[in-house]
Parts: sequence; structure tokens; C-alpha cells
Amino acid sequence: MATTTAKSEIAFIGLGAMGFGMATNLVKQGYKVTGFDVWPPTLEKFKAAGGSVASTPAETVKDRDYCVCMVATAQQAQAVLFEGENPAVPALPKGASLLLASTVPCAYVQSLEKQLAEAGRDDIKLIDCPVSGGAGRAADGTLSIMAGGSDAAIEQGKFLLQEMSDPQKLYIVKGGIGAGSNMKMCHQVLAAVQILAASEGMGFASHLGLDLGLARDRILKSDAWAWMFEHRVPRMLTPDFQPIASALTIILKDSGIITSEAGRTGFPTPMTSTAEQVYFSGLGRGYGPDDDSSLIRLYTEGKGKIGPVKGLAVDDEAKLALVLALLKGIYLCSAAESIAFAKRCNLDLDQVYELCMNAAGGSKMFETVGPEIMKLCRGEKPSTVGENLRDAAQKLQDAVLEAQRLKAPVFLGTQALNLVRLALQHAPQEAEKLPSAMVAKVWAV
Amino acid sequence: MATTTAKSEIAFIGLGAMGFGMATNLVKQGYKVTGFDVWPPTLEKFKAAGGSVASTPAETVKDRDYCVCMVATAQQAQAVLFEGENPAVPALPKGASLLLASTVPCAYVQSLEKQLAEAGRDDIKLIDCPVSGGAGRAADGTLSIMAGGSDAAIEQGKFLLQEMSDPQKLYIVKGGIGAGSNMKMCHQVLAAVQILAASEGMGFASHLGLDLGLARDRILKSDAWAWMFEHRVPRMLTPDFQPIASALTIILKDSGIITSEAGRTGFPTPMTSTAEQVYFSGLGRGYGPDDDSSLIRLYTEGKGKIGPVKGLAVDDEAKLALVLALLKGIYLCSAAESIAFAKRCNLDLDQVYELCMNAAGGSKMFETVGPEIMKLCRGEKPSTVGENLRDAAQKLQDAVLEAQRLKAPVFLGTQALNLVRLALQHAPQEAEKLPSAMVAKVWAV
Repeated sequence: MATTTAKSEIAFIGLGAMGFGMATNLVKQGYKVTGFDVWPPTLEKFKAAGGSVASTPAETVKDRDYCVCMVATAQQAQAVLFEGENPAVPALPKGASLLLASTVPCAYVQSLEKQLAEAGRDDIKLIDCPVSGGAGRAADGTLSIMAGGSDAAIEQGKFLLQEMSDPQKLYIVKGGIGAGSNMKMCHQVLAAVQILAASEGMGFASHLGLDLGLARDRILKSDAWAWMFEHRVPRMLTPDFQPIASALTIILKDSGIITSEAGRTGFPTPMTSTAEQVYFSGLGRGYGPDDDSSLIRLYTEGKGKIGPVKGLAVDDEAKLALVLALLKGIYLCSAAESIAFAKRCNLDLDQVYELCMNAAGGSKMFETVGPEIMKLCRGEKPSTVGENLRDAAQKLQDAVLEAQRLKAPVFLGTQALNLVRLALQHAPQEAEKLPSAMVAKVWAV
Repeated sequence: MATTTAKSEIAFIGLGAMGFGMATNLVKQGYKVTGFDVWPPTLEKFKAAGGSVASTPAETVKDRDYCVCMVATAQQAQAVLFEGENPAVPALPKGASLLLASTVPCAYVQSLEKQLAEAGRDDIKLIDCPVSGGAGRAADGTLSIMAGGSDAAIEQGKFLLQEMSDPQKLYIVKGGIGAGSNMKMCHQVLAAVQILAASEGMGFASHLGLDLGLARDRILKSDAWAWMFEHRVPRMLTPDFQPIASALTIILKDSGIITSEAGRTGFPTPMTSTAEQVYFSGLGRGYGPDDDSSLIRLYTEGKGKIGPVKGLAVDDEAKLALVLALLKGIYLCSAAESIAFAKRCNLDLDQVYELCMNAAGGSKMFETVGPEIMKLCRGEKPSTVGENLRDAAQKLQDAVLEAQRLKAPVFLGTQALNLVRLALQHAPQEAEKLPSAMVAKVWAV
């Protein structure tokens, strides 16, 4: 794939679960890669995998025209690039490419561009390129990558982005530095809400007395399908939520980026905020290092212990219909929040759609109603594809009221119901069939 | 107070904490009261207090022209009035007054009126008269009472309502049967949100490292004052949340009435719903029988255990400002939700205001911004009394983002912030000073 004939030397800073896979993939592709991490055992492992190692950020990047930074947070990026005795930036060769692949707030990567200029280093070709796809795809070089930067920076670094990504999943995002981070952030709205929705849906199924294996099978085959549900439920149904594939603290970091960035422009994120509050509750309970599928514990702990409760749903079909309605209501609202936020961030909505459908934020609701919400964002009239919003509201309400009878918490479903009701308050009362995409009107799209 | 010369004989069904006080107060006022309860020890106590007792609902009401029903729920009311071998309704004398003082959904008391008619007993003069004020005021005959019914029913029963209420706090609510229950329900929006706000505000103060006694004192003297805060905090600051003055299950019953009644007309209740979800979490934790002030436990349990956290606020004044902003944002939104719901229920807003200010739902924010929200409900322009909504949003956001840094949950504050942002999305961008009452626009008032 590489467009250079002699393979370039690459500096790679941050060899965690993701970074290690990405760096060793580059080694396998024939690059000479010098790695750096603060945790010595990782360096030993990286040497065993054929990499070289360095002992400071400066030493890592010295004489290397390409540097990938894959640390965990903006704070860590700032530290390795500018702080301490031997930071990377002053040691980067003139005109080098700097790929920041960490998931960071748009505000940070924009401040990084400014800091480079202030340090007299605007020769450095910065690319803002957060990734998605997990450690397995990192090691295979088949990640989703959302890359933004100047044309010159993208041109110089593109071969490296191509080495790390699936050819179908490399998104060059218009809008310069910050656009890649914004694209990932809008995708993470779906992730943050839908990770918790898996626990909420299965917790509700449990309160209803449904067999969870049956509920899983039916949900996976329905229009309440979501990528996150499919990938969380297997671990949710193991006794100890094993293996730990993605810790609560990881999605909590991403939700924090969303809600703090939303604050910069006063954008409302009621769905993500609700999820984040439940995540904080889980963190307070000590679940931070646990797999995020384990949050079902927050939904089921009172079950059978809170005195007599009785729902209205009498058979499995009626109960399943309630669970599906709950999940669909949540996914409808997460789709609307994500797309409305993308519009606010001036992203290319078609690209957002393609990315989200190909990544962990995908859901059947997003697939069908997403394009209609996008029409609304463009000032076009949405078609009546999908359910009538009033019907969806009724079904979602049936689910939320059943949860109330069972005294089961459904944080996201309740929030979704209130958002749908808010949208209906403002909708013309005479409209017989109201496209469900109209819920996005709440976000003033 | 009684308008009859010979004091009437009264049947009193339901001698719980409230009913016992109300019934013994009537005994003290010189009435002959026959009581009924399913719990025998209460009957013994009532005899000792000078009452008579009966062994069935039918026996209780036989030959009594006045019956007060003060059971805990609509289900219990239905049982004593119509079900079992000896229900009350068939035994009531022709033209008797039936005062339903329990807090029940408007839908129930309206169905009761219909059931009476269907049973050929529309001679019974039904009054829908939920009360507020706690067991102490019940025993003193100084409750707040919200009474609705036909003019004839109110005329016949008024002397009894007067015996049980403070003269300043008897509200005859226009709108017939159901109006009293609706009035109480709209008041309970404030109660349901503000009970939890006390825990949320003090929990946030605790995460900030504030001395809780100092926080309490400053909040009580500020424009973030609320009746619920003043009355919950003393128990919140005892080691075991003692004495148990109002159990979590009590407010959970009321929030359930609000959210299920809201569903009948599709009215959005984002603030009450958020509180209710947290209440369900508390119930799941086994806190149902505990005093509702003990919910601070849901906010503080991770404190100091979740790794290093660091806020921006450096001194007590800065921290207190954040707590005040959080509470004020919550109270602004609970005021808007309550008044918008009252408008939806076609209640007299001036009466709602007077009631709420004189009862447990009162807050400084309600006092100052409430009248402006009511103007908005009437299609008038609110004055710029109170804070600029954009300033309030900024301060509330500062508080919510600080909580995020401290990884502290602030469910209500976050919801309030999103509602304010939603309102601002729809507000004219050019308006320099936007009255904070404009947040009610979210509810489409």
C-alpha cells in the first residue's frame, strides 16, 4: 500500500492495547518502527515483536519523518509532545508528519496546532486522526480512521493512514484540524448511549421475567438491532462479565469529551448526558475497571427484593415487544442527537452516515431513520420512512410505564420518551402521520 | 368552625400516620368519629384517643353522613369503597359526603365518580381533596387541602375541610372532581424534584470538599433556598438519616402518579422522570423504607475511591457558587415543569402559585421566576426579573463540568442544563437578555 519505495522510519509513542497493535502491524508491513511507552514491560514485548525502542519521546522521534502518537488522553499527549526534559516536538525533523491518533477533544487538537505555530514549528504536518475498531483490528491494520488536516499534511501522511486502516474505512474528513476528532465524537454519541442501552434493554428483559437468551436472539433479529448490543451481550451473559474487552472508564472518557465539547457551543446532549450520569454511578460503585457490559448490574440489583410488583404484559411476545420498543426509542434519539451534533460541528453528514453504519455506532434505527434526520438537517422534508412518531411514542410509553410498574430503572428509555414528547409538543397537532425523524426537531436542526 | 350546630358523626377509613392524626383531631373538635383500619393495633390506639371503631368499611359508614377516606393508594381506596364482602359505598346513607383525601391519580378519582354513577349512587357527594403537610399538621388540623368537586358537594363538606385545614391553606380548586388531585400532582412535581435536589446539592458539596454545615448554612440564606432542602438536610446530616420522616417509597408513589398521569396527555416531565429514575435506583439498593434524605448515599459512595480527581474551584466561595448554581438551575426547571403541567391540567395558575409557595414545594426560584413563567403561560411577555437565561446556563454548566471533573453524578443538574440548552436552541439568537422564565418554552407553554 505504501506510496514510498524505501519504507519510512516511524516513531510510535504510546504502546497500549491499541498502540501496540498498530505499531506491530507497521513492523509486519516492513517499516522500521521505534516505540516509546512509560511502561517498561511493553517495551520488552515490542522489541520481541521486532520493533526498536527509545527511552524518551525526543529520542523516539529524532530523525524520523513520521510520528504516530497513540497515548490515552489529551493530557498524556501534551506531556509527551511538549513537557518534561525530552519532549517530542522540538526533536521532530523539519517537515515531519505528526499523526495524533488518540481520541481527544477537538479543542485539544486545535490548541495543539496553535502550540506548534507558537513554538515556530508550523513546518510539522499535523494530522488529527482518531481511530475506532478495537485492539484486534489495530493489529490487523484494518481500523476505521477519521483523519483531518491540511491538504499537504494529508498528502504526506496518507500512506501511513492506509497501512493502519481498512481501505473501506479510511475517512478523510473535510474541515482541517479538529474535524477528525469531531467526526469520532459524533460517532461516540451513538457508542456512549448504545453501550448502556444494551444493559438497560437486557435489565428490563430480566425484570419482565424473560429468558435472556430468548430476548437476545429476538433483539438481534429485529429492527432493534445495534452493533453495541450484539457485541456487549455475550459478555453480559457470562457470570463475571468476561473477558474485559472495554472498561467502563474507556467509554466514560469518550462521554466526557462529548459533554464537555457540547458545552463549548451550548449544544444539548440529553441522551449522552443521561448515559454519562449512569456511568458515574457505576464508577462510584467501583465498576470502573470492569467491562462496560457489566452495567446491567445497575439495572437488576433490586429485582425480586423490592416487594410485590406486577406488570401488565402477560406473555413473552408482549414482553419482547416492550423491550424492542424501549431499545428502538433509545436508538431513535441517539441517532437524532448524533446527527444534530454532526450538523452543529459542520461535518459532512453523508460521511457521518457512512462512518456510523460501518462502525460500532451502527443500528437498524440509524440505518433507516438516519437519512431522514439528515434531510431535516438540510432543510428538506423527511419522508415518512419508519414509524409514525406518535405510534413510536405510544409504544415507548407502554414500555416505560411497564418498567415503572416493575419498579425497574430505565434511564435512557425515560429520557427518550420525554424527548419524543417534547418534539410532539412542538409538532403541528393536525399532522396525521409524523415521520419519526421529526424527533430531531428537539435539537433545533 | 363547624357550620352545623349538633356536631355530625364522621366515618374515617384509613388510620395511618396521616389519617390517625386527622381523625383524632376531629375527635378533639368534638365530633363522634368511627374509625376503620386493617391494622388492629391502630384501632386500639384510636379507641384510647376517644374514637369509636368498626370492623368493616360498611359498618364504619352506616348511618354516617360524612365519610373521610385516607388510605394510602388508589388500589386501597377501590378496595374499601367497592370490593370485598362489606364495602363502604353501598352502605353510605343517601346524599352522604365522601371525602377522598388520599393522594391518587386524577384518573382514579374521575373513575370513582363514574363508578358511583354506574352503581346508581350519584346521590353521594364526592369531594376529591388530597392533603399536604405531614402527620404533625394532620393532628393539629392545619393541613393544606386541595379540594375539588361539585358546588353542592363542596358546600356540604366544607365545614369538615375547614376542621382539617389551616384557614389560609384550604384551596377550593375549580374544575370539579380531579382538579384537587391535579393541583396536588403539580405541586408534587416540585416535591419530587426538590427532595432529590437536596441530596444532589449536598452530595456535590461533599465531592467539592466543602464543609457540609457551611454549605447548608449558605444555601439556606441564598436564593437557592428551598423548603425541601431546609427540611431534608437536618436528617441528611445525622449518621443514620434519622428520624425517618418520609420514606423513599412515599415520594416514589407520588412521582409515579405524576409520570403516569403525564402519559395520559403525552406531557413531558423530564425533571420528574429523572428524579424517579434515581428513586428506582435507590429502591433497588434497598433504601425504600429509609428517609428520603438518605439518597445522598447514591451521590457520595464513590468519593475518594475512584482514583485522583481534581476540580477547578480553588476556594470555598468558588465551590459554594457552583453548588448554588446547580440548585438554582434545578429549581428553575422544576418550577417550569410544574407550572407548565398545571397549565396543561387547566388549573388556575394563581392558585397553583399560592399553594406552592405555602407548601413543601416552595423555593426562592419558584417565588421569583414562577410569576414570569405564568405570564409566559398566559401568552404575556415575561419581564426580565431573575437572571439572564444565558448567564444561568453558563453558571449551571460550570457546576456540571466541575462535577464531571470530580466524577460526581449530578442527574438533575445535568438534566436541567440540557433543558436550558434546548430552550436556548429555540430562542432568538439576537436577544441580548433572555428572561430565565423562557426555559419553560421547552414545554411548549
